[in-house]
Amino acid sequence: MTDSVLASADLEQRLRAIGEERYHIHHVFHHLLHGGRLSKGQVQAWALNRYYYQASIPAKDATILARLPSPALRREWRRRIVDHDGDGTAPGGVERWLALTDGLGLDRGYVTSLEGLLPGTRYAVDAYVHFVRERSLLEAVASSLTEMFSPNIISQRVAGMLRNYDFVDARTLAYFTPRLTQAPQDVAFALAYVTREARTRAEQDQVLAALRFKCDLLWAQLDALHHAYVSPGLPPPGAFRP
Amino acid sequence: MTDSVLASADLEQRLRAIGEERYHIHHVFHHLLHGGRLSKGQVQAWALNRYYYQASIPAKDATILARLPSPALRREWRRRIVDHDGDGTAPGGVERWLALTDGLGLDRGYVTSLEGLLPGTRYAVDAYVHFVRERSLLEAVASSLTEMFSPNIISQRVAGMLRNYDFVDARTLAYFTPRLTQAPQDVAFALAYVTREARTRAEQDQVLAALRFKCDLLWAQLDALHHAYVSPGLPPPGAFRP
Repeated sequence: MTDSVLASADLEQRLRAIGEERYHIHHVFHHLLHGGRLSKGQVQAWALNRYYYQASIPAKDATILARLPSPALRREWRRRIVDHDGDGTAPGGVERWLALTDGLGLDRGYVTSLEGLLPGTRYAVDAYVHFVRERSLLEAVASSLTEMFSPNIISQRVAGMLRNYDFVDARTLAYFTPRLTQAPQDVAFALAYVTREARTRAEQDQVLAALRFKCDLLWAQLDALHHAYVSPGLPPPGAFRP
Repeated sequence: MTDSVLASADLEQRLRAIGEERYHIHHVFHHLLHGGRLSKGQVQAWALNRYYYQASIPAKDATILARLPSPALRREWRRRIVDHDGDGTAPGGVERWLALTDGLGLDRGYVTSLEGLLPGTRYAVDAYVHFVRERSLLEAVASSLTEMFSPNIISQRVAGMLRNYDFVDARTLAYFTPRLTQAPQDVAFALAYVTREARTRAEQDQVLAALRFKCDLLWAQLDALHHAYVSPGLPPPGAFRP
């Protein structure tokens, strides 16, 4: 007996259930971060490592862009790259992330050199770029759906960090504000896309698995940070030391 | 001023120095493992995760095999695949690793399904296969040079595990014995290859960086295990729970 095709609302409900279980809003490192229980050095380690994720998002989106079959779809996806790379006047997400690492007192050259990056961060982020190149376009688009959950985590993070750390302010956290409006716009498109294009139950299951994969790689980045900088707090050879 | 080309002995000395600093023989999880300070469940988690590394080695070697330019070089490298996949009568390394997971009481179907794998293991191992596909052939071959250090770690591991755990015996650890003779043979070839083919200092630096990369990915696998199963001992959603 094969499972039957899910109605759109059921598919969406199952996608949301994956977020409830696996989104990194439930990770202990996130709780420590927004709860004000990290030192400045630990927040630096987070920002430094997360920079590589931010810096790789345009490569991920350009890889998907290269696979989309029509001008209309590509125009829609191209907006993501503009959001992250800017237009030459308004700064994009990558530049705004560097404002955060600047504000935390990290040397910009050191951050962008990736010299102090945790290998675990590198492998998880590279896995994302490889995933969108190697899997079906449907799975590649579906893996972006963690943005369904990002406004919540961003709100927690920004409010908690502003309240609890005297070394951050609204200016250094400027990365996050535009994401609160950009992410829902991205989600509306991607959710409509996967709902429309996943026609069989097998394809719907691929969509669900792609979201699980993406949640896992966000989670693994916080695992690596927690191991290196919280408990036991053993950064691997060559990695950033606060 | 450019650094000058290193003599072969100097290159080899620098390769060995990387092992001294970064090889996972220095990782806290390895010390716990061979020192008898892990529970059976923690040893199961190690064997389960390490299975994915073992199972991916033939894909890594076949990727290099596909890039080697002559029958003589390919015959040399093909031996590695025979060592891991067997010849249909004598079991190869992958099969011998499954004897270890069997001996530890893990269900073989569960192990090979990869269902309980840590995402961090998956990303690190996949990074290895991607590396040998995407980097120069010189770097791909150089990344195998961690085998320079493997007889030491294997000796420590086998002696320590036999002494300290009543749930392993010489039969379940049979994976390791042939590796003590196979690895030096592999190293002799790979070391001669990189010494011969790295003609400029820039190429020699690539060789050194490739070995660092490989050490880091072995280290990252133990980081992921330590985080999930030792301290704080928080396996990510979906991962194996002892």
